[in-house]
Amino acid sequence: MVPIRTHRTTRIARKKIPKPPIKETGRFSADELRIIPLGGLEEVGRNMTVFEHKDDIVILDMGLQFPEEDMPGIDYIIPDIRYLEGKEKNIRGVILSHGHLDHIGAAPHLLPKLGWPPVYASRLTLVLLRKRLEESNLAQYLVAHEIKSAGEEIFLGDHFKINFFEVTHSIMDAMGVILQTPFGNIIHPGDWRYDLNPVSGKPTDFSHLAHWNTKEKPSVLMMESLGSTKEGSQLSESEVYKNIRKIIELAPGRIIIATFASMVERVAQIIGVAEELGKKVALDGYSMKMNIEIAKKIGYLKFNQNVLIDIKNIHDYPANRVIAIVTGAQGEDRAVLMRIANGDHRHVKIEKSDTIVFSSSVIPGNERTIQRLKDNLYRQGANVIHKEIMDVHSGGHAFIEDIKLLIRQVKPKYLLPVYANHYLLCEGAKVAESDGFPKQNIFILDNGSIGILNRQGFRVNEEKVPIQYVFVDGLGIGDIGNVVLRDRQVLAEDGMFVIVATVDSRTGRVRTSPDIISRGFVYLRENTDLLNEVRKRVRTIVERKTVGRGQINWIYLKDEIKEKIGSFLFQKTERRPMVLPVVIEV
Amino acid sequence: MVPIRTHRTTRIARKKIPKPPIKETGRFSADELRIIPLGGLEEVGRNMTVFEHKDDIVILDMGLQFPEEDMPGIDYIIPDIRYLEGKEKNIRGVILSHGHLDHIGAAPHLLPKLGWPPVYASRLTLVLLRKRLEESNLAQYLVAHEIKSAGEEIFLGDHFKINFFEVTHSIMDAMGVILQTPFGNIIHPGDWRYDLNPVSGKPTDFSHLAHWNTKEKPSVLMMESLGSTKEGSQLSESEVYKNIRKIIELAPGRIIIATFASMVERVAQIIGVAEELGKKVALDGYSMKMNIEIAKKIGYLKFNQNVLIDIKNIHDYPANRVIAIVTGAQGEDRAVLMRIANGDHRHVKIEKSDTIVFSSSVIPGNERTIQRLKDNLYRQGANVIHKEIMDVHSGGHAFIEDIKLLIRQVKPKYLLPVYANHYLLCEGAKVAESDGFPKQNIFILDNGSIGILNRQGFRVNEEKVPIQYVFVDGLGIGDIGNVVLRDRQVLAEDGMFVIVATVDSRTGRVRTSPDIISRGFVYLRENTDLLNEVRKRVRTIVERKTVGRGQINWIYLKDEIKEKIGSFLFQKTERRPMVLPVVIEV
Repeated sequence: MVPIRTHRTTRIARKKIPKPPIKETGRFSADELRIIPLGGLEEVGRNMTVFEHKDDIVILDMGLQFPEEDMPGIDYIIPDIRYLEGKEKNIRGVILSHGHLDHIGAAPHLLPKLGWPPVYASRLTLVLLRKRLEESNLAQYLVAHEIKSAGEEIFLGDHFKINFFEVTHSIMDAMGVILQTPFGNIIHPGDWRYDLNPVSGKPTDFSHLAHWNTKEKPSVLMMESLGSTKEGSQLSESEVYKNIRKIIELAPGRIIIATFASMVERVAQIIGVAEELGKKVALDGYSMKMNIEIAKKIGYLKFNQNVLIDIKNIHDYPANRVIAIVTGAQGEDRAVLMRIANGDHRHVKIEKSDTIVFSSSVIPGNERTIQRLKDNLYRQGANVIHKEIMDVHSGGHAFIEDIKLLIRQVKPKYLLPVYANHYLLCEGAKVAESDGFPKQNIFILDNGSIGILNRQGFRVNEEKVPIQYVFVDGLGIGDIGNVVLRDRQVLAEDGMFVIVATVDSRTGRVRTSPDIISRGFVYLRENTDLLNEVRKRVRTIVERKTVGRGQINWIYLKDEIKEKIGSFLFQKTERRPMVLPVVIEV
Repeated sequence: MVPIRTHRTTRIARKKIPKPPIKETGRFSADELRIIPLGGLEEVGRNMTVFEHKDDIVILDMGLQFPEEDMPGIDYIIPDIRYLEGKEKNIRGVILSHGHLDHIGAAPHLLPKLGWPPVYASRLTLVLLRKRLEESNLAQYLVAHEIKSAGEEIFLGDHFKINFFEVTHSIMDAMGVILQTPFGNIIHPGDWRYDLNPVSGKPTDFSHLAHWNTKEKPSVLMMESLGSTKEGSQLSESEVYKNIRKIIELAPGRIIIATFASMVERVAQIIGVAEELGKKVALDGYSMKMNIEIAKKIGYLKFNQNVLIDIKNIHDYPANRVIAIVTGAQGEDRAVLMRIANGDHRHVKIEKSDTIVFSSSVIPGNERTIQRLKDNLYRQGANVIHKEIMDVHSGGHAFIEDIKLLIRQVKPKYLLPVYANHYLLCEGAKVAESDGFPKQNIFILDNGSIGILNRQGFRVNEEKVPIQYVFVDGLGIGDIGNVVLRDRQVLAEDGMFVIVATVDSRTGRVRTSPDIISRGFVYLRENTDLLNEVRKRVRTIVERKTVGRGQINWIYLKDEIKEKIGSFLFQKTERRPMVLPVVIEV
């Protein structure tokens, strides 16, 4: 084993897109539909697509993206909506496909900026959106239209007629959208999967979508492609159900199940098993409790309220009669499972007879954190069950065989793989091709690409709409750019080294010893020799320029300190802290 | 999909182990063997184990560990050898099981500190070690004994008799070790796997190791357990060979295969296929070229030198006659594949007909970097083949069924899972138990644990030898502690904010406007209002304490600036930069 790891902190956010003024789109024909993804085609998350025809705009989804590892301190990223600047009055509606954050999470930032266009979504999605808005004290501005059933048909502006269809995903009330336009019908299932053997309800079937493809109006399938490299079909939820039930039946003591708060269906399943087996369920984690409460309140979850107990009463029941469902399956710092593992949870400490189930797959980037979390749990003697050991997770996304089935059922004229990293879109395209779908009818767009559908068919415009990262960090939105991020990375790598030299303006001499503040570089107390040598050198560098000279070029002097002390420190340590000189004339 | 990612940069290196003086080990009996792992039992890498009986010490492996993501700027981590301080003269030999860096990489740091004890290893391992030592100008000090065949038997000190056995791994010349001691026989295969259907040579068979377990001298199997959660058996190299051959045969143009430089056997296989198919091979990457050159020179690789071409001559041949084997399958910053993908490689640019093969599994922590690398390659139109799509990698480590087979063949009395994260050791133990191995004879040690084997059997001592992270960063070894690392993490998260205020000692007034240096916090040019407000507040805070006062408590004043400005900045931005005040009295 040679565990080479890359030094990610040295890498810089890759895109240095200049900020061109948004081009007038007047050059586009009025006789066409424009499909412009503002996010979600080069990453997982930040999903948002603009559909535009004449002066009507319809938007699908307003999601956020969680930061990459070379974006330290960033909370999340939201879509760049500069394309919509000046067109706010044209926005006829925002449709949200389901209630996950990568589809609704940017709405509290974007809806106000766009003048609160009306939002169309299913019941659960709207409730979750409203909850997010309440957290920002914005809920009173929301203009919402609930889509009550897949049969509804709505008109947005003069040119869009919208239909809906039910979609199987890992949250209830997921909805696919059909945008009827003069040039064709856009079919967008949002996030989707097949379940041919569901725990409840009918097996997934998309064959009713085939009729949207006609000679006069071809259909365009925008296909979420996150699982396009995964062989076979997504596991049926009833398989997962069986596994979970078995684990719960066999567990000798208490069971702690960690999963996403957003996997409402999964949580519902577990509560169902608990009811059948006469066990109590304690939910913990703010979003976990909130989601289940909401789903129950609006009638999407039906269980006897007695089955739920407060986590603080968990010790009132025998260990083998209790299940805790908690957040933190990805090893998130402040989530419940991490607090339990670290002994910081007020009511739950790990016991040797505990069975801990990770009921979620690992999101790329979290592997090491989860490994450590597991080390910690195993060390306390718990029995840990994860996907590697027994499959207890079935994700909400389609695999290769599901993709083939979808395309065969929907029979679209054009195919646009969407909602994943670029390479996954390419793999989605390959799957379609391998199954006989004509290559020339598959289009892979980027964020900012302009797809054009007109009477001649579908094509991609040569120019793009400019797209940048819009970082949310604390209260700041879009104020963190590459300069700030690069500084954070440099600081993380080798720390900083501030030198403050006070120069007597009459003599040109450095007064007293220069002050040095260093953090993240070397431990100062153990390096007094190095520091004294730096002080001596700074004095020499400064006085060579200041003593007996007339006009002093302070900028040049500071650059010289930076450069000379920087290379001295590198020579002594092979580290490159950020050297920041301050020269004060008194 | 709800891609929650944890904010790793906020996490702190978890261990705050105080530095206790090393306890005298005089309380141990002379009638026992001590097994003390100094590294490799709580992580992947940093492998090193001490075997001690009376005044004889034998060491197995001296590996390095690559840093975790909460250790920014760290190059690597080496074992903590404080236990050996004062015992250098007792060290009879250092045995290295094979030539990978997690087994030999710390030797250039540790051998000099231990007074250059003699090193025992196979030919390739020694050559690779010598190469590492040459890079530090230390090769002339090496005292080396080559183990020429598995049949050799050597005596180390008065109490250790050492035997060797051949091991299948992903590098040639991997060697298992048997330490015969008065109390039992320790069997340690190092890193191991089974190949029951090898490309060349005999199928792996460990059943000859069973005879080391006798009534008088029980055997202890120290079993590397990295793959203990992976179902089934490790894929045979001949399967991999078939896949690679098929890819090479079917590729329409040039083939670029990225793998570890350390996977010498894999590279040899590819060169073999190229020879058979009449293609040329260009190697690129310093370590890649070096390893193959070494293996060829000492006769471990046999191929016609004509098959190799220089990477700069790659365009002299038709694209479909050329294979490039390069480093960088983990997305490493400066490795060849990254340079090719970024267009920075002098001789190779991606062409649409290229087939790029990732012939290595993804090391946890590298997932996102590799995803981006793939996005980049796909964007340039290359056909990319990775494990997800077609299995072209077979690792050097055993899976669950292999572990069962090993234990059945070796039939040890005691089992110690080693060389992996703690939870994987636990899973290794579970596999053994599930196959009928007696639970009470399995011991899971930590780094620093003291395993004791005497006439009564095996047990683990209550106290441990103290173990800390020893970080190598540039020229510094062990000089980076938790304070420095934590500062780096804080700096990465929200940057820094230095305030320099100059106070007139006569008037107590702040002279001119305080200087502010901020990096990684906000973009200064766009935040002049914020900065002016900070300057005003600093002046107020300072002058309240200095104007018209006698004795001034400068430390208290600085703390006050730090706290007040810190909370002001948080209130305005919800970010917490490291605030560093400097007050200069002139």
